[in-house]
Amino acid sequence: MLIVQKYGGTSVANAERILCVAEHIVASYRAGNKMVVVLSAQGDTTDELIAKAQEVNPEPGKRELDMLLATGEQQAVALMALAIHRLGAPALSLNAVQVGIEATSLYGNARIKRIRPERITRALELNNIVIVAGFQGVNRYGDVTTLGRGASDTTAVALSAVLGADLCEIYSDVDGIYTADPRIVHGARKLASISYDEMLELASMGAQVLHNRAVEMAKRHRVKLVLRSAWYFDIEGTEIKEGSTMEKLLFSGLAIDRDVARVSIMGLLDRPGVAYHVFSLLATQKISVDIILQTAGSGKTKDINFTVHQADLDATLKVLETNKEAIGFDTVTFDTGMAKLSIIGAGMTTNFGVASMMFEALYECGVNISMISTSEIKITVVIDEKYADNAAVCIHEKFAQIMNE
Amino acid sequence: MLIVQKYGGTSVANAERILCVAEHIVASYRAGNKMVVVLSAQGDTTDELIAKAQEVNPEPGKRELDMLLATGEQQAVALMALAIHRLGAPALSLNAVQVGIEATSLYGNARIKRIRPERITRALELNNIVIVAGFQGVNRYGDVTTLGRGASDTTAVALSAVLGADLCEIYSDVDGIYTADPRIVHGARKLASISYDEMLELASMGAQVLHNRAVEMAKRHRVKLVLRSAWYFDIEGTEIKEGSTMEKLLFSGLAIDRDVARVSIMGLLDRPGVAYHVFSLLATQKISVDIILQTAGSGKTKDINFTVHQADLDATLKVLETNKEAIGFDTVTFDTGMAKLSIIGAGMTTNFGVASMMFEALYECGVNISMISTSEIKITVVIDEKYADNAAVCIHEKFAQIMNE
Repeated sequence: MLIVQKYGGTSVANAERILCVAEHIVASYRAGNKMVVVLSAQGDTTDELIAKAQEVNPEPGKRELDMLLATGEQQAVALMALAIHRLGAPALSLNAVQVGIEATSLYGNARIKRIRPERITRALELNNIVIVAGFQGVNRYGDVTTLGRGASDTTAVALSAVLGADLCEIYSDVDGIYTADPRIVHGARKLASISYDEMLELASMGAQVLHNRAVEMAKRHRVKLVLRSAWYFDIEGTEIKEGSTMEKLLFSGLAIDRDVARVSIMGLLDRPGVAYHVFSLLATQKISVDIILQTAGSGKTKDINFTVHQADLDATLKVLETNKEAIGFDTVTFDTGMAKLSIIGAGMTTNFGVASMMFEALYECGVNISMISTSEIKITVVIDEKYADNAAVCIHEKFAQIMNE
Repeated sequence: MLIVQKYGGTSVANAERILCVAEHIVASYRAGNKMVVVLSAQGDTTDELIAKAQEVNPEPGKRELDMLLATGEQQAVALMALAIHRLGAPALSLNAVQVGIEATSLYGNARIKRIRPERITRALELNNIVIVAGFQGVNRYGDVTTLGRGASDTTAVALSAVLGADLCEIYSDVDGIYTADPRIVHGARKLASISYDEMLELASMGAQVLHNRAVEMAKRHRVKLVLRSAWYFDIEGTEIKEGSTMEKLLFSGLAIDRDVARVSIMGLLDRPGVAYHVFSLLATQKISVDIILQTAGSGKTKDINFTVHQADLDATLKVLETNKEAIGFDTVTFDTGMAKLSIIGAGMTTNFGVASMMFEALYECGVNISMISTSEIKITVVIDEKYADNAAVCIHEKFAQIMNE
C-alpha cells in the first residue's frame, strides 16, 4: 500500500515526539508499505517566527514572511529524516521546491496548482521513506509561498491524490470525529466513519479537526482520509469517505460555534439589489457573514438577519450606520453572546422528523431559538451562548436512540 | 558602485543588531550604490540546530543536516529584508536555490561550481537591495548543500566575482587586520591594506578573520576585499588587494597558532617513498599534518619532524606504532604544548635580514626554537607555548622600527 501520513505541529514538538512518530512511520514501512509523510513545523515554531519578524518589522511583508515561515517545516522534515535514519530505515526529506509543489503567487495564502510527482516517485522506488514539508509551495517566480494556516492537511491530501495513495492518514491531538464535543456531552461517541460532506459541515461549524480545503480536495479526488491520534497509535480513528453507505446516518455530529453576534436590519426598502448592497459593503470591510435570513417582504419593507463573529460586530454596525441613507433602512438591532449549534447528518432535511426532534429537545430544556437555518445535511440554530452546552447535551440525548454506528 | 557586503552571525544575532545593520545597508543604498548583502545564520543558530539534530540522531547524516542548517541563513535573510522594508527601502531575500548557487554534491563541505547571476541582476535592475543566504548552495539533484563553516565569506566573494562588484566588504567582530593580536601585543597596529598572499598566510596561521577559500577566490578573480567592523561603521577597515604596492612591506603581521604537538620519527630508513608512506597513513586517519621538516639523510637513516594539532597526537602515535615495521624506523619522540609563531610579509625570505632579526628577537627574550620553516612570505618557528605571548611582543618590538604603513 502507498500511505500518506500527516503529523501536526504538536505531534512533532520535540525530539522525544519526533522519535516516537518516527517509530510509528518505520513500523508501517517495515510492514511493507510505501510511505510519504507530511509534517507541520514543530510546536510553536510558526508563532515564534512570526514574533521574530514583528520584532524587526511590526507589519512584515508577506513574501518575506513566507520565506521565514517555510523554514519551520524544513527543519521538521530534516529532523524526522534523521530520526528515521537512527532507526535504521532510509528516509529523504524534501521541501516544496524539491517536491515541485507549484502554487499560486498569493503569499501567505497560496493555493496548490499542481504537484510534480517525479522526485517523490523516484525516491519511493529507491525504497525511501519520503518526508515532505507541509504548508508550503513554490510560485512561478521560484519564491516560497505558504498555503495558509493548517494547510499541511491540504499538502497531504494533494500528494495522496497525485500519487494515487491508498490511504491518507491525518494524525493530530484528537483521535477522531465525535458526535459532539466529548468534554461537553458525556454520551458523545466516536464515529467509525463520516462522509466528506458531513465532515465539511462539521468543520465549517467550528469543529476544527481538519482543514476544510483538505476535505474538499479529498472529496474531489476521492482520497480515503482517516483521522487518527498522534499520541495513541493503537486507537482506531475516523474514516472520511464517500457517503453512499452513510446515507442512513441521520445524525452524525453536533457542533457548537461560539462568540456569535446576530444583527437585524429592520425596515429595508423591498427593492432589487438591496441584499447585494448590504453584503458587498460588509465584504469590502473583510467582515465574514454567516447565516443570512431574509423574511418575505411585507408591503414595502423587509428585514434581513445575519450573524457575524462577535469581534466583527463594531465594524459591522459602523458600516451600516455610515451607509444608512444609501442602503435605505429604519433601524439596526443586534444581540451579542450568541452561539450557533448545529446537527449534521446525511439526508437530514429530507427526513421530516429530524428538525422537529431538535426543536423539541431545545423546548424541553427551555432554550429559546433566535434563528434557524437548514441545509441538505445540517440544521443550525442560533441560541444564547450560555445555554449552548446544556442544549448540546439535551439534543445529543434526544438523538442517542436513533444514532446508528 | 555595486557593493557586496557580508555580515557574520554575531553581527545579526538579534532584532536590534539586524535593524542596526539594516540602517547601514540602507545608507549605502541611498548614497546611490547597488547593494547585494550576504548573511550568515544569526548568532548561535547553527550550533543550536546541530544540537537539535543530535538529539534525534547522535550521528546525523550530512544531507539531512544540510537541509536543517540551511534554514538558519534563510531565516536571517528574510528578517533582514523585513528590517530594510521597515526603513522604507525595497529588499528581496533569496536562498541558494533561488539565486542559483550551483555547488558540488559534497554535503557539509560543498564547493561553489557556478553562480547564475540572472535573478540577482534582475532584482538589482528593479532597484532592490538583494539579501542572499550565505553558506549554502544547491547541487545537481536540487538538494541543499552547505559550503563548510565560515563559508559565507566565500559566497560573498563568489557573488562579487560573478556580478563584477566594485567592492566586497566583509563585516565582522574585528575591524581589520593587525600586525599582531592587539590583546597580546600592545604595539600592534592595524594595516590599511594587505596582499591576498599575506592574508592567506595569516589566515592559515590561525588569524581566523576571513575564510581562506574566500581569500583564494578573491585573489583568483581580483575581487577587492575590505574587512570592516560590523559594530563601528565609522572605523576604516583593512583592504585586501593585489600586492604590487605591498612588496615593500617586509612585515605585515604576526600570528600565533597554539595547541601544537611536535612529532619526530627517528632512524627512518633512507629510501624512496618513506615520507609518502608515513603521511598517507596519517591522511587516511584524517590527521592533518602541518610543518614537515626532513633532515638530510646521514648514512642509511634520516629523521622526519612534523607538527600536528595536539588533539590528533594520540591518534598519530598509534598509527606510527601500529605500522612501525612496515614503515621501518627506530623511535618516535614528541613534544606537546608547543605553539607556532609566524611573521608574514611580502618578500620576506628574499631579504636576508628578516629571518635573523626574528631569531635575534627570540634569543634576546630567551626563547628556544624547536623548529623553523620558511616560505616566500612567511617565517614560522615552533616554540614552547608558554613563551608564545612574550615572544610575540619581543618580535613585534624588534620589527616596529622597520614597519611601514
